[in-house]
Amino acid sequence: MEVPFEPEKLTYPEKKYEYLDHTADVQLHAWGTSLKEAFEQCGMAMFGYMTELEYVTPRQCYQIEAKAEDVEGLLFHFLDELLFLFSAEPFLICKKLEITKFDLETFEIECLCYGEPFEIGVHPQGTEVKAITYSAMQVVQEPDKNMYQVFVIVDI
Amino acid sequence: MEVPFEPEKLTYPEKKYEYLDHTADVQLHAWGTSLKEAFEQCGMAMFGYMTELEYVTPRQCYQIEAKAEDVEGLLFHFLDELLFLFSAEPFLICKKLEITKFDLETFEIECLCYGEPFEIGVHPQGTEVKAITYSAMQVVQEPDKNMYQVFVIVDI
Repeated sequence: MEVPFEPEKLTYPEKKYEYLDHTADVQLHAWGTSLKEAFEQCGMAMFGYMTELEYVTPRQCYQIEAKAEDVEGLLFHFLDELLFLFSAEPFLICKKLEITKFDLETFEIECLCYGEPFEIGVHPQGTEVKAITYSAMQVVQEPDKNMYQVFVIVDI
Repeated sequence: MEVPFEPEKLTYPEKKYEYLDHTADVQLHAWGTSLKEAFEQCGMAMFGYMTELEYVTPRQCYQIEAKAEDVEGLLFHFLDELLFLFSAEPFLICKKLEITKFDLETFEIECLCYGEPFEIGVHPQGTEVKAITYSAMQVVQEPDKNMYQVFVIVDI
């Protein structure tokens, strides 16, 4: 209901509020004709969220390793290793990932990561990925359809 | 571990990923020497998140009403009514809220809302508030300290 008022008589109270604990996440969904490809794509999805990959030129290659007790753990640690490549020296943004060892019996991964150090002014700043989570993680394997999918929620 | 590679031989796979379900929230924390003031401040906090209130000139005044079964419900419905003022005709951004009825026995609120219709170009676009939530809601009443606080998480 609209009511009449006199704007010139309006006074304003002091500010007694603040904004706390902004939290956000995004779900990465990646797929491939093999679980290995879906993992590689999921890693790319993460880097693609951090910047626009068209601006990245691979100048360096690093090998990472991940090991876990099950396939979800393997995905978690794989992404966590990739995130660490970015978060500390060499601050690598990867444009291509190539998993060279993908052992689902021992749950071990070795991966070649091609990229270059993140540089403001060269790479558009996307959204910082703060952490990988196990929340609602899904690894969907449909060998009869040649379809493998992973879903991972990352904190941003 | 860094490894050597030949950049010119690198090829890139097609993109097989997407981003889903981006979710985010922010917690509003507001306070006052009365619960009524804390409620008013919490409403202002919400509008202050949507735009910069310095750019808002009150040209219209609307009265809203809210009713609930308890104090948390009252806060929820109060904010929900304010959000509705903004989300539909008159698309009002409020610069001042004045609660004229604040009944904690019947849990009823009447409030005068001073503002003007949101207009791109006039009002800086803040973040859209999509919904009020009951998640982790807190109403802290300390009459001996003249301190009343509310905490509300809103989806953005």
